[in-house]
Amino acid sequence: MQFLSDNAAAVHPAVWQALRDADAPDAPYDGDRWSARLDEAFSALFGQSCTALWVATGTAANCLALGAMVPPHGAVICHREAHIETDEGGAPGFYLHGAKLLLAEGEGALLTPASVEAVLAGIRPDVHQVQPQAISITQASEYGRVYRPAAVAALGALARERGLRLHMDGARFANAVAHLGCTPAAASCAGGVAALSFGFVKNGGMGAEAVVFFDPELAAVTRYRRKRAGHLQSKGRFLAAQILAMLERDLWLDNARAANAAAAELATACGDRLLHPVEANELFLRCTAAERAALRAQGFGFYDWGPDAARLVTAWNSDPAHVTALARALAAL
Amino acid sequence: MQFLSDNAAAVHPAVWQALRDADAPDAPYDGDRWSARLDEAFSALFGQSCTALWVATGTAANCLALGAMVPPHGAVICHREAHIETDEGGAPGFYLHGAKLLLAEGEGALLTPASVEAVLAGIRPDVHQVQPQAISITQASEYGRVYRPAAVAALGALARERGLRLHMDGARFANAVAHLGCTPAAASCAGGVAALSFGFVKNGGMGAEAVVFFDPELAAVTRYRRKRAGHLQSKGRFLAAQILAMLERDLWLDNARAANAAAAELATACGDRLLHPVEANELFLRCTAAERAALRAQGFGFYDWGPDAARLVTAWNSDPAHVTALARALAAL
Amino acid sequence: MQFLSDNAAAVHPAVWQALRDADAPDAPYDGDRWSARLDEAFSALFGQSCTALWVATGTAANCLALGAMVPPHGAVICHREAHIETDEGGAPGFYLHGAKLLLAEGEGALLTPASVEAVLAGIRPDVHQVQPQAISITQASEYGRVYRPAAVAALGALARERGLRLHMDGARFANAVAHLGCTPAAASCAGGVAALSFGFVKNGGMGAEAVVFFDPELAAVTRYRRKRAGHLQSKGRFLAAQILAMLERDLWLDNARAANAAAAELATACGDRLLHPVEANELFLRCTAAERAALRAQGFGFYDWGPDAARLVTAWNSDPAHVTALARALAAL
Amino acid sequence: MQFLSDNAAAVHPAVWQALRDADAPDAPYDGDRWSARLDEAFSALFGQSCTALWVATGTAANCLALGAMVPPHGAVICHREAHIETDEGGAPGFYLHGAKLLLAEGEGALLTPASVEAVLAGIRPDVHQVQPQAISITQASEYGRVYRPAAVAALGALARERGLRLHMDGARFANAVAHLGCTPAAASCAGGVAALSFGFVKNGGMGAEAVVFFDPELAAVTRYRRKRAGHLQSKGRFLAAQILAMLERDLWLDNARAANAAAAELATACGDRLLHPVEANELFLRCTAAERAALRAQGFGFYDWGPDAARLVTAWNSDPAHVTALARALAAL
Repeated sequence: MQFLSDNAAAVHPAVWQALRDADAPDAPYDGDRWSARLDEAFSALFGQSCTALWVATGTAANCLALGAMVPPHGAVICHREAHIETDEGGAPGFYLHGAKLLLAEGEGALLTPASVEAVLAGIRPDVHQVQPQAISITQASEYGRVYRPAAVAALGALARERGLRLHMDGARFANAVAHLGCTPAAASCAGGVAALSFGFVKNGGMGAEAVVFFDPELAAVTRYRRKRAGHLQSKGRFLAAQILAMLERDLWLDNARAANAAAAELATACGDRLLHPVEANELFLRCTAAERAALRAQGFGFYDWGPDAARLVTAWNSDPAHVTALARALAAL
Repeated sequence: MQFLSDNAAAVHPAVWQALRDADAPDAPYDGDRWSARLDEAFSALFGQSCTALWVATGTAANCLALGAMVPPHGAVICHREAHIETDEGGAPGFYLHGAKLLLAEGEGALLTPASVEAVLAGIRPDVHQVQPQAISITQASEYGRVYRPAAVAALGALARERGLRLHMDGARFANAVAHLGCTPAAASCAGGVAALSFGFVKNGGMGAEAVVFFDPELAAVTRYRRKRAGHLQSKGRFLAAQILAMLERDLWLDNARAANAAAAELATACGDRLLHPVEANELFLRCTAAERAALRAQGFGFYDWGPDAARLVTAWNSDPAHVTALARALAAL
Repeated sequence: MQFLSDNAAAVHPAVWQALRDADAPDAPYDGDRWSARLDEAFSALFGQSCTALWVATGTAANCLALGAMVPPHGAVICHREAHIETDEGGAPGFYLHGAKLLLAEGEGALLTPASVEAVLAGIRPDVHQVQPQAISITQASEYGRVYRPAAVAALGALARERGLRLHMDGARFANAVAHLGCTPAAASCAGGVAALSFGFVKNGGMGAEAVVFFDPELAAVTRYRRKRAGHLQSKGRFLAAQILAMLERDLWLDNARAANAAAAELATACGDRLLHPVEANELFLRCTAAERAALRAQGFGFYDWGPDAARLVTAWNSDPAHVTALARALAAL
Repeated sequence: MQFLSDNAAAVHPAVWQALRDADAPDAPYDGDRWSARLDEAFSALFGQSCTALWVATGTAANCLALGAMVPPHGAVICHREAHIETDEGGAPGFYLHGAKLLLAEGEGALLTPASVEAVLAGIRPDVHQVQPQAISITQASEYGRVYRPAAVAALGALARERGLRLHMDGARFANAVAHLGCTPAAASCAGGVAALSFGFVKNGGMGAEAVVFFDPELAAVTRYRRKRAGHLQSKGRFLAAQILAMLERDLWLDNARAANAAAAELATACGDRLLHPVEANELFLRCTAAERAALRAQGFGFYDWGPDAARLVTAWNSDPAHVTALARALAAL
């Protein structure tokens, strides 16, 4: 009964079917008919023209998006606990050729205009200090919190005003949209997001994410940079096919809803143990070592979160029986 | 009837089966039980202890291998027509942080000790010139030529003598071994290769190559660099499973033999049109524009190779009927 | 009456003389007879064999030293207010190819074993997090504080134990040694410093700093990297000559003593306004906007340090009359 | 009697005087009154608005200029024997973050539209190949040849047509202008040069070159990149002062004329030994080992140029007696 992460869950049957369908030979790289449909599919989804490129990982998606926005001598403002800062093995430093991450504060790993302003206020506008060109936010955040459309728009407005680009790490964008019940656009581009790393791997995919650019110039550069990073797979049709399968009939949203519902069931059982409101599919709860041991003895797998807390993650295919069992076990602690 | 490339061919049924078998949840990244078996599988194959890391593309495999060998202020000696020089979109410059490719000559895109020595002779050993730390060769070469074990060993001896590391781009390593009829070791590590990019994508895989390190220190560094390059997929078990399926019961070799046999049938039909001896699964032949048009009119797909030649590539699953049809058409030109 | 910084002060007459003496033609780059004497001069000064390379700036010195210690996928632990973090325009990101600076705390911009351990404790030893290879400390610190020999040695011991290299940014190393009254070795290499950026520009030089390596392998690599960074000046003899002039008859120490003495005179006048003990030639003092305006009205130049403080810096040639005048003005506030 | 190079010659008395005059304290970095005059001085010289930044070396000047023009995934077309390719220790790879140098042919190390077109013709406009963004030419060339204004303009027109920027490495720009007898503009920006590395070190300076941007956007970016490269010296006034002294009353041109005249005298003595027409201050001549030994026995210093040739370089201060002596010795060979 695993609640370790959604990042290694099984692949959705519809994705498997799409993969098999894509086995028929086609042009290599992104010259195939599946890849050719991506722009249209995402443009329809977002209700505005956009360009989408597939890559194998969220790290590559984030760093390619940021690399198109930020010159080597520049910087990205992100949360102190952003995935790009803490868990991507220094990939931003690599892809951005040494550009800096400038760390902002914010409850629940959410940035606010004030927290970004605080970073900006500390930077002298001279050549001795690195000047930022972008802001990166995570939707849902590293603590499972979700930016409301107005919150995205406020950051987008600040970005525009200060000449910065806004990037959204959407490794769990689906979970955020499912929570908000708004359009994907309202949760991202309508608020000023220029590039979105739209995650599918955690949500039923095998190995395909999309970088969605709402600015065609950023996409044009990224085509070269994707190849340069060794991310232009020759059988790219298999990546495009995964993504198209996820978009079809809103599978991405159904899967996210399932994961969120499982998380909500667990959240109820956690009561005031919760360290953060549960808005997506991650839970962070106060939990002593003894309690964690007790849960593990009952067969539940999850990560410790420091000495006094635990992290639980549900997935698109979390077994309802396992979820209910864990909910009971949590309530009984 | 496509002879454009092997790089977008269908996925072998055994690989499909392995992918489905790997759907069962397991630890993320390379902590799963499939990834855990790679070192042992390759060590058995090569008859010596080695470490193997999966990545999605040959470009990433080559550049991670070279990046472990060469510091940013260094250089790699390779053939003027090496894939890393001509067709990887500048990935070596990215992964090696600006290290240089020093271009050597050689018939059939094959390096020789003499051609490498010629490059070395042109470099003053002072700080004004970039000093090489590695040699990279392609097995089979970009013109479908194969290094004999003695040829590899001669380059390995030179490399050792000059303090250089030897890398082998084995995008079509299987085809080379199938041609040589020797052990994989004889075609690579026995001759001094320190790291081998072992290709599977062109040979029946979907999106997995292996970087095989015969020096554990290079592998240790590369684990960090793979993550940093955004190539550590969270569902890495699907990559490992592909590779293991290909290694099992020598599927990799069977597939390569099939492709080579198809190429041989075409080669016979080409007669003295051949620009290079056909040793693997690529053919380069003199062919006028009119002749190419005639072939295409008969339904054959392939690339032009400059104004007066064509390139044909066979794959593990080239349809024997198509091959025979093309052979006849070539003979009839 | 300028107390803005020591970094633009006049050049010492002995340095001028040395520059003129070096006008005679000699071999280019560092093949000249002045450059040839550097290793010996520094080895004598430190009482141990070392290798010294000239560069034009402290930023280049720091980043070349760190670049020899840290691979692109690595990191350097430094103080949150270290010059390399706050004031070098991202140069470490450039020279280290995207390696990270990991920020530690510490009173007076001084690191302690505990503050470094706190950073290390926060790093999981896996590929998702950047692993450090070096510690960088500033002697004297960015707040004019000085590491005692025992403090350096404690950090050196920790570094050794954790497999890290220790770098010292000695932009004001002379001031630190003058304060300590110990040998240069005791303030640096005896405590485990592997590379020292030894500053001369702030102390009477024109445009020459030395990177002193106590490990010859680091120096060998840096020769290539200095050229690669465009820092191998063709008339390098003028840089070497400056440094030799400063070392001769301990001019570097005399100059630093003069600056320190001026700072001490001002410190006495500041009383409990001081935000940090004055150990070198920088003073940070509580000072309202009105008080600062009053000082400026009397002709004193200095930098604000946030809204409620000021920074004063003395130099090797601070005019004693100006110093006394400022001391009086401070006392009279 | 040295004819090894002009790169380590003595500093001109007027430059010495300017250096002494700049000793008076002023604002650090490039905030001083000397640096403030550079733009105006160069704008007057070129008859068009431009921005000039000082740096210590030609390598830094070239690479900063190119770095402002070319993204990391791009390339620069230059001559196979260009200094940036052969003698800058890989600095372009460093400053351009792995961008490539694409090598063109051309007699006398001079590019022509045809030789650039030949490179362009070999590049497929797809993401697998690196696409160029700039052309770099050397004025005077590495073989002492000079681009006529029309030749520069032809390359400039080609660059514009193909969306490329034109950079000029003017390490010996003064010698070229002296030879041409045209305006500095005609030899550079009038023909479409967007950034010029204007050399002073080989022509009487100590350690200051100028990067002159005829496009203000390139300059703005370069201010940050200069600092990031550790090239923003804190006593920058000493660099600016050197350059201003050289520009004053056309000292730069007088010095170049002197060097060129010396070279012309030697050229006459060389007769048909010359491998290249002598247009600036470098001579390449056929010369056996025995002849070279004979010259050296008479006290003349110079570099071998391969087994059968020699390179002679005159400088602004080549002693007329030495020149005449060498001319006689050459004639007598």
